[in-house]
Amino acid sequence: MITLSPQSISELVAGVKEDVIKWRRYLHEHPELSFQEENTSQYVYDVLQSFGGLELSRPTKTSVVARLIGPNPGKVLAIRADMDALPITEDTDFAFKSANPGVMHACGHDGHTAMLLGTAKILTGLREQIRGEVRFLFQHAEELFPGGASQMVAAGVMEGVHQVIGIHLKSMLEVGKVSVLAGPINAAPDTFHVTIIGSGGHAAYPHTTVDSVLIAAETITNLQHVVSRNTDPLDRLVLSVTQIVGGTADNVIPGSVEFGGTVRSYNAELRDKVPGLMERIIKGVTAAHGATYQFEYTRGYDPVVNDATVTQIVEATLKEVFGEERVVNGPPTMGGEDFSAFQKAAPGTFFQVGAGYGPKESWYPHHHPKFAIDEDALPVGVESFVNLAFRLLEE
Amino acid sequence: MITLSPQSISELVAGVKEDVIKWRRYLHEHPELSFQEENTSQYVYDVLQSFGGLELSRPTKTSVVARLIGPNPGKVLAIRADMDALPITEDTDFAFKSANPGVMHACGHDGHTAMLLGTAKILTGLREQIRGEVRFLFQHAEELFPGGASQMVAAGVMEGVHQVIGIHLKSMLEVGKVSVLAGPINAAPDTFHVTIIGSGGHAAYPHTTVDSVLIAAETITNLQHVVSRNTDPLDRLVLSVTQIVGGTADNVIPGSVEFGGTVRSYNAELRDKVPGLMERIIKGVTAAHGATYQFEYTRGYDPVVNDATVTQIVEATLKEVFGEERVVNGPPTMGGEDFSAFQKAAPGTFFQVGAGYGPKESWYPHHHPKFAIDEDALPVGVESFVNLAFRLLEE
Amino acid sequence: MITLSPQSISELVAGVKEDVIKWRRYLHEHPELSFQEENTSQYVYDVLQSFGGLELSRPTKTSVVARLIGPNPGKVLAIRADMDALPITEDTDFAFKSANPGVMHACGHDGHTAMLLGTAKILTGLREQIRGEVRFLFQHAEELFPGGASQMVAAGVMEGVHQVIGIHLKSMLEVGKVSVLAGPINAAPDTFHVTIIGSGGHAAYPHTTVDSVLIAAETITNLQHVVSRNTDPLDRLVLSVTQIVGGTADNVIPGSVEFGGTVRSYNAELRDKVPGLMERIIKGVTAAHGATYQFEYTRGYDPVVNDATVTQIVEATLKEVFGEERVVNGPPTMGGEDFSAFQKAAPGTFFQVGAGYGPKESWYPHHHPKFAIDEDALPVGVESFVNLAFRLLEE
Amino acid sequence: MITLSPQSISELVAGVKEDVIKWRRYLHEHPELSFQEENTSQYVYDVLQSFGGLELSRPTKTSVVARLIGPNPGKVLAIRADMDALPITEDTDFAFKSANPGVMHACGHDGHTAMLLGTAKILTGLREQIRGEVRFLFQHAEELFPGGASQMVAAGVMEGVHQVIGIHLKSMLEVGKVSVLAGPINAAPDTFHVTIIGSGGHAAYPHTTVDSVLIAAETITNLQHVVSRNTDPLDRLVLSVTQIVGGTADNVIPGSVEFGGTVRSYNAELRDKVPGLMERIIKGVTAAHGATYQFEYTRGYDPVVNDATVTQIVEATLKEVFGEERVVNGPPTMGGEDFSAFQKAAPGTFFQVGAGYGPKESWYPHHHPKFAIDEDALPVGVESFVNLAFRLLEE
Repeated sequence: MITLSPQSISELVAGVKEDVIKWRRYLHEHPELSFQEENTSQYVYDVLQSFGGLELSRPTKTSVVARLIGPNPGKVLAIRADMDALPITEDTDFAFKSANPGVMHACGHDGHTAMLLGTAKILTGLREQIRGEVRFLFQHAEELFPGGASQMVAAGVMEGVHQVIGIHLKSMLEVGKVSVLAGPINAAPDTFHVTIIGSGGHAAYPHTTVDSVLIAAETITNLQHVVSRNTDPLDRLVLSVTQIVGGTADNVIPGSVEFGGTVRSYNAELRDKVPGLMERIIKGVTAAHGATYQFEYTRGYDPVVNDATVTQIVEATLKEVFGEERVVNGPPTMGGEDFSAFQKAAPGTFFQVGAGYGPKESWYPHHHPKFAIDEDALPVGVESFVNLAFRLLEE
Repeated sequence: MITLSPQSISELVAGVKEDVIKWRRYLHEHPELSFQEENTSQYVYDVLQSFGGLELSRPTKTSVVARLIGPNPGKVLAIRADMDALPITEDTDFAFKSANPGVMHACGHDGHTAMLLGTAKILTGLREQIRGEVRFLFQHAEELFPGGASQMVAAGVMEGVHQVIGIHLKSMLEVGKVSVLAGPINAAPDTFHVTIIGSGGHAAYPHTTVDSVLIAAETITNLQHVVSRNTDPLDRLVLSVTQIVGGTADNVIPGSVEFGGTVRSYNAELRDKVPGLMERIIKGVTAAHGATYQFEYTRGYDPVVNDATVTQIVEATLKEVFGEERVVNGPPTMGGEDFSAFQKAAPGTFFQVGAGYGPKESWYPHHHPKFAIDEDALPVGVESFVNLAFRLLEE
Repeated sequence: MITLSPQSISELVAGVKEDVIKWRRYLHEHPELSFQEENTSQYVYDVLQSFGGLELSRPTKTSVVARLIGPNPGKVLAIRADMDALPITEDTDFAFKSANPGVMHACGHDGHTAMLLGTAKILTGLREQIRGEVRFLFQHAEELFPGGASQMVAAGVMEGVHQVIGIHLKSMLEVGKVSVLAGPINAAPDTFHVTIIGSGGHAAYPHTTVDSVLIAAETITNLQHVVSRNTDPLDRLVLSVTQIVGGTADNVIPGSVEFGGTVRSYNAELRDKVPGLMERIIKGVTAAHGATYQFEYTRGYDPVVNDATVTQIVEATLKEVFGEERVVNGPPTMGGEDFSAFQKAAPGTFFQVGAGYGPKESWYPHHHPKFAIDEDALPVGVESFVNLAFRLLEE
Repeated sequence: MITLSPQSISELVAGVKEDVIKWRRYLHEHPELSFQEENTSQYVYDVLQSFGGLELSRPTKTSVVARLIGPNPGKVLAIRADMDALPITEDTDFAFKSANPGVMHACGHDGHTAMLLGTAKILTGLREQIRGEVRFLFQHAEELFPGGASQMVAAGVMEGVHQVIGIHLKSMLEVGKVSVLAGPINAAPDTFHVTIIGSGGHAAYPHTTVDSVLIAAETITNLQHVVSRNTDPLDRLVLSVTQIVGGTADNVIPGSVEFGGTVRSYNAELRDKVPGLMERIIKGVTAAHGATYQFEYTRGYDPVVNDATVTQIVEATLKEVFGEERVVNGPPTMGGEDFSAFQKAAPGTFFQVGAGYGPKESWYPHHHPKFAIDEDALPVGVESFVNLAFRLLEE
């Protein structure tokens, strides 16, 4: 069925490299925030349309789906790229630096989109050899809860899909490497918000107040128990209080203090238990001092859990294509990803493509104003996608 | 020497009551913030000038001093009234409610000024009977550190002064009562500001950060030791953290958190010790977790300490004038007052005049948007001042 | 009525000094613990009986009362001395050092008893000049709650008493001085005991336990709020956790931890409030972490509050007898005393007699194994008692 | 080479079952504490000697090594069983209940020893078919640091050994199952001891003391950061404070408080870092309040890390012998084991044999006074050992 060797695919990839870089640079220069990807999605739509042979649709206002249906019946493989940028002011010297002040592709989604466009271009040209369907999912709003993935799923984009794959470029991994791992690889990134409600008053008469500042401090201290005492040490949990604010004057104890943060987990049972553990602590500590509270816990994306079977195929394919030494099994991360929404609809694998820019000492992490990728990573991603498309559809 | 009985003074006071109320209402309607009392001081100046016989001066931009020098040599008595208002939006229905949005005489300084004007008017009329000098100090900026009192003292207004007195109206004491107490009656209101400097980063990777939020919480908790453990239980100290702020995103541990508040003390030795105790705690707790800090401690006004001798005379005089049952010995307060700056230049007494407005259940505390005084308190203050002027100059 | 000048009393005191020292040394060498003063009380009884003219009784097993009833009707003055020793091993070189291992007169009660015996001897000799009655109360068990004073009061020893006085020797005050102060001078020494009940288990699996050690730590930390936040800074309160114990193995989290300590207060209203504040904190913090608790709060002696009128007479008398410069107004103490039980039956004054032994640098505090008194303090106490007996009965 | 099928081994195992149970019951009835296994080791020695054909030695006072050297040259396989009991009073009704008050085989080591004796008996009978050597290690003192394993290794018992295996019975796993897992399966169980050195004094005068109780509480609270903040959430760490003691009287703040506990880790780098993190916290918090400290950190056993290659063979063999459904991959545990000392000398695998006694609801955990095993587990262990002996020596 597949008449293409990895070698010939490699040549096809080389043929689209310039296009991919051009698309990526355009997107990088014109970043748009989550849920506002109007120009981006139109650009993607237009590029896809220029390939011919794709069934295009707009499942939501700023997302695009392209269906490549081969001549022979078969399974459906979805490949996803996210398209949104971040509210960060770019601090680089690239010629194609963000032209949109305060917005930056600081997470590499521009590269993700360009790689998937390149993949679509190659596969469109190979349409006759496709068994089943390749469905290209250009997703909006990965960076902002509730995320674009679940909206696209709700709009039906995963109907009939048998498998789903996606890539994240990784600025802290050297170019040429790919990293793939079965099982959980991205945590569930929940958030919470707490208001400690005391009773304000003059700072010189603390006994006439219920001191919300100190009670907030005690609460934050006691919340450490959730990780240090209430969680199985073999499990994984993060609880970080990241914001706190209260009070307006040196001599007035404020009536309330607010704080919030994030909880990261993999284990669904533990995740379900955390809000209760937190509220028990907040309730107890505030009651200890005559205060009350408000507590909001917002579940974020589900954990990304790579399917064992699909991941085995992905890993084997990548090793075959790139050689064993270029394929690593990087560790999971406590960061979140809404690729998990697609995985709830079909088994899938999310993997990483190294994009370290320049010497290792000067690599910048994702979400940094100086974040950069080595564009040589882009053909690696395209080559992965094209090979996997054939391999996963043939199984 | 004094040919005036308390009874005849009482009649004189009745004669100026309407003026005093009129002046007070004008001032109430036109409040000005600390150090900005331009219209207020001009108004006071003009009223004083209308009495004739006073040597007027402007020791600072917005303060006024009036000297009434009697025909016979003698001592110098200073009487002080403060004139500034607060950044509070008045929430009352008075016809003479603040016409200056966001500014309000919510502490009764309008009454203080009007009472001292009334006193000046009466005493000016009795100039021939004055032995020595009565010096009227109309002070700016009591509410805002570093305060107007020390500026006036620096400008020389206390030169040659033998004794100094002042009144504070008290909304939580019934009209007709006066309260006087020897010894410390107002605490030293110092302030502090702390920055906990950690190392920010992604909230999902706490081990790569130094969590300034949690360290700030621990620091605030540990600061309780200063009062609960490090202070003689027979002494008096308040340490209140009243403001805290840090962090801007749910998923980012901030690099630093700032908090601040106030320390109130009477004992000079203890006061000197507190910054060291605080810094030891801040330094230790931050070092415990690999953080650093900035710590600023700002000394505020000195405590108001009423001179034993002067206070004995004041109390005896007030009991003679108003009867024993109207003179109480109210407790000290942890609130601050820059009357202490005058007391450093001459022995003096600061006392309180009851001004509870309406039924006791509806009295509002000072600095409240519904703060109000019963204007019948004003003649009580004038009568106190006039009697004390004669009594203190004759001793 | 009083035909004796202070000078002639002074001579009488000089006459009993040797006896007083002899009695004191005997008592010092034969100390007995609270409620076990069998030999001590018998010794006192025998000495008193040797004076003749006293009506002796044993209101409780180890206390003694001696009534000296004068020929003329009048008021009743009670004078109290406590007789018990402490569970401390004496570390001194005195020839009359404790012969009872582990028991020591380390608080000066031996001196108190000897001074009152000396006083009884002198007054017995002056019986004809006594108007009314002097009642000598030799009290057991001051050092151990519930104390002997309340037992003696319950046994009726204060019936008919108009006034009561007592002395405490003070090792940290120089010999020759006496210290007297009106109002509250000894705090109420309450005690508490807390059990934090978690759920024990293997230390490697904290999530299967409720960690009573950490929860106890959090509770103790949070209890600081009672003093630092919940108490009027103008009031006086101590809350000290002094004992904690829990756990028996490195690898087992214990099911419970116990801790206890003391609360010291003067203000009855605040004292009543403290157990509720503590329990609110203990309940809240344990609930925060799924633990429970037991909380016992035991009220100790009431505060010693010196009566204004009696104290004025005592101070005036002492100044007359010893000269103004030898009479000071020492500060109150947060330590407890069950003299308060007598004060509830009659107005009274408890004052101190300086007994600093040797150079000031080597004074030891009460309850110290090296505690010592200068025996020249003893005649000062006798002289105070004899003079006050006449003065208070004549008023 | 191996002419024995699993089936024929199974029959041999059935043949020794009664002996194994008899030995186990004898050992259970005569438990001895760690380092005191005199009777136990003699018993083992005698039983082994009765088999004939074994080279016996006593590498340490209470351990035994038996070498079974086959006729053909080959590798050396060590099999280990531990023999010591625990300081627990048995609370069961077995006829062979502990006859040694306060000592109990509450961890199953009696079974371990009996299974290895049974294995030795069978293999001794099959000596002609052994290629290389099977070395039976009867270890003393697994329960008490520094453990018997490292002493035996130091005595040379692992010289020439190529592979090492061992079994732990598991009371919480059903009989018939075996559990095997590659990689880390037992944590490093370190211990620590902290003394907080304040300055004692009267509980009524906290300002004259440095309150070691409260400072210990703050330190324990702050130590939570090590797990909750300073450890990679993907790593595994436990820090439990399990013991605390300080203070002897309600009214005396003690000069010091002691506490201690355990740290469990897998990651060597993290393990190395923990003492420094702990000391930084202890040092900082004590410095914050003017206290000092002593800190001792004692490294316990190294983590048990199952060799990938050996474990693969073990798992495959067990699946072949017992069927796939009886072999599980149980989770690691934070508990410690000194089997790791043998693994440092040769690659090896430690695995578990289910021994749940009675209905699942009534299973008791190890170290419980009611701990019990189902003796049907014993032949499972013997069968595992015999099969693995042949398989591992043939590879």
